[in-house]
Amino acid sequence: MNMKKVALVLSGCGVYDGSEIHEAVITLLNLQKNDAQVSFFAPDIEQMHTINHAQGVEEKYNRNVLVESARIARGNIAPLSDFNANEFDALVFPGGFGAAKNLSDFAVKGAEMSVNNDVENAINAMLKLGKKIGFICIAPVIAGKVISNGVKITIGNDTQTAQAINAMGAEHVNCPADSFVFDEKFNVYSTPAYMLAQNTVELDAGIGAMISEMLK
Amino acid sequence: MNMKKVALVLSGCGVYDGSEIHEAVITLLNLQKNDAQVSFFAPDIEQMHTINHAQGVEEKYNRNVLVESARIARGNIAPLSDFNANEFDALVFPGGFGAAKNLSDFAVKGAEMSVNNDVENAINAMLKLGKKIGFICIAPVIAGKVISNGVKITIGNDTQTAQAINAMGAEHVNCPADSFVFDEKFNVYSTPAYMLAQNTVELDAGIGAMISEMLK
Repeated sequence: MNMKKVALVLSGCGVYDGSEIHEAVITLLNLQKNDAQVSFFAPDIEQMHTINHAQGVEEKYNRNVLVESARIARGNIAPLSDFNANEFDALVFPGGFGAAKNLSDFAVKGAEMSVNNDVENAINAMLKLGKKIGFICIAPVIAGKVISNGVKITIGNDTQTAQAINAMGAEHVNCPADSFVFDEKFNVYSTPAYMLAQNTVELDAGIGAMISEMLK
Repeated sequence: MNMKKVALVLSGCGVYDGSEIHEAVITLLNLQKNDAQVSFFAPDIEQMHTINHAQGVEEKYNRNVLVESARIARGNIAPLSDFNANEFDALVFPGGFGAAKNLSDFAVKGAEMSVNNDVENAINAMLKLGKKIGFICIAPVIAGKVISNGVKITIGNDTQTAQAINAMGAEHVNCPADSFVFDEKFNVYSTPAYMLAQNTVELDAGIGAMISEMLK
């Protein structure tokens, strides 16, 4: 069997300051269900901040994106600067505020956002080779900024976020939680996940549909 | 529809010092697939220690079990001391070293282990009402200690752990990753998960089988 190789890019560990954990694990589950060989990556940088998820307040000591992402990866993770597009069939970004706070600064700057260099390099390398890239939940804003040029992406149906995506030169397409949007020109996939999903079953439906199609 | 109410007890967030994240999320997914209403609990205590999951070394600043568990629960979690067995149909413990370092001290003391008071109270309250309790991965050692009295449980087939379970007066039963063990007398379920599973698909098989049976 010729296993597809997929790189999963994490942004920490926890919805409010890192990768959304349910999305990351359900993406991994669907990748492994489709016989993919998964490698984890994260940028080796400080988080924008660290949030106490029980109380919603900022922690005194900040944390590192790679180190916290390693919790989801069970220790088996590499710095995103080591990512080599030649070695992979697909690149996938789960959501969570980490995508908008650590991989980019969308949470603070909206359409005026900038994107982490390693993230931008990884996406551009895949685009150059015409390989598949998947964006989940809020992560499609990164595609909006880096790819722009009318790339069709979805974050569900949130008006303000959709407007920011359009302002960056991408094209937002409304999409329900259990489905995904495919941009043929750029080979880019996106699904709303917790931008719309009410529980893990709905997450699994949308992420599962997208991942199955990406690995066909 | 009469939704079953299930309490999921977390022990932190990360395999080496807390709840195993894949097990916790895949348990949640299977509970929601079976239409359960899930409430998260964790003891409000310091972790035994905090491990940098990228490097395998101890962190300088320790973390709180409830606060870190809240990352998996997306903030919606209560102290385990608030758990009321009358309100739930089932109680489930995912694995990870947190079960053996925070909910108990099995990782340090083996068969001489002691169990966190809130954990012991929650289990005893469910036993008294004859309600279902599920233990995943290494968490069955807690059942071995608290229930003892020949309760049939599995952690897969690890000889040393099985011997410790038998030494505590429970009965270890070998079991493959995709199955589970049921003790009829105590209404206790257990499945090996990452004690044997090689990936999330195998996790999903064993945890899924156990949860479906528990919620029938």
